[in-house]
Amino acid sequence: MALTFSDVMEHLAAGIQLPVNTVDKLEPDAAGTEVQGIVTAFAASQYVVEQAARLGANLVITHEGVFYSHQGHGSALEQDSVYQEKSALISSSGVGIYRFHDTIHRYALDGIVEGLLQELEWEAYVERHLPEVSILSIPEMTVSGVAEYLKQKLNIPYVRVAGNLSATCSRVGVLVGYRGNGHSVIPMYEQESLDLVIAGEGPEWEVPEYIRDAVRQGKDRGLIMLGHAESEAPGMKLLAARLSRQFPEVPVQYIQEQPVFQIL
Amino acid sequence: MALTFSDVMEHLAAGIQLPVNTVDKLEPDAAGTEVQGIVTAFAASQYVVEQAARLGANLVITHEGVFYSHQGHGSALEQDSVYQEKSALISSSGVGIYRFHDTIHRYALDGIVEGLLQELEWEAYVERHLPEVSILSIPEMTVSGVAEYLKQKLNIPYVRVAGNLSATCSRVGVLVGYRGNGHSVIPMYEQESLDLVIAGEGPEWEVPEYIRDAVRQGKDRGLIMLGHAESEAPGMKLLAARLSRQFPEVPVQYIQEQPVFQIL
Repeated sequence: MALTFSDVMEHLAAGIQLPVNTVDKLEPDAAGTEVQGIVTAFAASQYVVEQAARLGANLVITHEGVFYSHQGHGSALEQDSVYQEKSALISSSGVGIYRFHDTIHRYALDGIVEGLLQELEWEAYVERHLPEVSILSIPEMTVSGVAEYLKQKLNIPYVRVAGNLSATCSRVGVLVGYRGNGHSVIPMYEQESLDLVIAGEGPEWEVPEYIRDAVRQGKDRGLIMLGHAESEAPGMKLLAARLSRQFPEVPVQYIQEQPVFQIL
Repeated sequence: MALTFSDVMEHLAAGIQLPVNTVDKLEPDAAGTEVQGIVTAFAASQYVVEQAARLGANLVITHEGVFYSHQGHGSALEQDSVYQEKSALISSSGVGIYRFHDTIHRYALDGIVEGLLQELEWEAYVERHLPEVSILSIPEMTVSGVAEYLKQKLNIPYVRVAGNLSATCSRVGVLVGYRGNGHSVIPMYEQESLDLVIAGEGPEWEVPEYIRDAVRQGKDRGLIMLGHAESEAPGMKLLAARLSRQFPEVPVQYIQEQPVFQIL
């Protein structure tokens, strides 16, 4: 029997209770379509959709959405030529795009966090997973040493670092995506005796300014921002590996993008 | 008659209608205190408060708040040693901190935008000011040329750039602080025929991902993120110059911080 979009989605969402206002859905809603191939990626960018079409994959599974907003776009965007050209590409290529955000974050071990920790080969250092942050005890390294390790393991050209680069760290909190905000992160430093937090992104005037003050007071705390996509893409890469084992009858491929910002 | 905190605040807020839930206020609330000196800064960091005390200035006027949050901190933070040490410094130094955010953004020309445009020497290129974005026609430059110009004029070590670095740009939108979000920025590219947007910060999966797709479609649009503080600090520098002329009887000084992130 042919594998359908519905089969893949039911497998991925099995046992997960989603919030009423979940952003996870398939668009266009053609769940009965036969799967020709699957690609996973951080976001359904123009490039990712082009690559899916080129590979003959008709199911695109992405963590972030298609049109530059967490909750979906307003009608104003529909007048925009970038929107229109991308919409036309999606229609003509016949792909279905499954936004896979809330579900994977609700796995018993958050699948996005798991992907990042695997990519870093840091799973053995995990002490425990709290709802939004994983607490690790890593072998002692300087903050700049950790930064270099992250760049090498994730194959990214830069990270943003606040704090004293030569401070030694061992207790580390890891958060993905936009969880690098003050509310989620600041209490962790003392509650969990953290030396360093590694996150995706967050407002610049929250945790970074806290770190600035901590360092000025002689408290060696650090913060490394990987980038939103850079922190979450490994989870979508791990997902591709798992789907490939689960559904060996269809080709599955993870598509990597370049960092969205260059530093000048 | 001695100049009081109240005199300075009344001068700064004259004619401005603030929202009911404004974040602008003096803490501690000692409006009748005689002004010994004024410092202005982007945020009331530990360093800025220390410098104010060292200079004998007892009125600190800052754009962002003291405790790492736009709306004020929760009670959880009060257990934190960074909070406690900073609170103790503020108490012992006897400074009053006037959060000056909503008011300056409501000046007929937003005082934060005005400071940035003056620092860039771009005032003559302004076509018009919309509520959150100023539309400029600058002499033709490449995106990377603009990036270098910004770094030199603002004396900052780096900017983050999305888009094609060698694209030529002339029509530029300028936004400060956290206004670099998709809702504020994306419609501007086509409504105002912008080649480039320069902003403080914003979520990475909004405007940057739009630019990624635009460039992939062959549309040469660009985005430069200056950093939140880097986009707003010039407004607080301009404020110091104006207060110095308005109140020549007291010393007024602007205090510059280093960028909160280093790039590794």
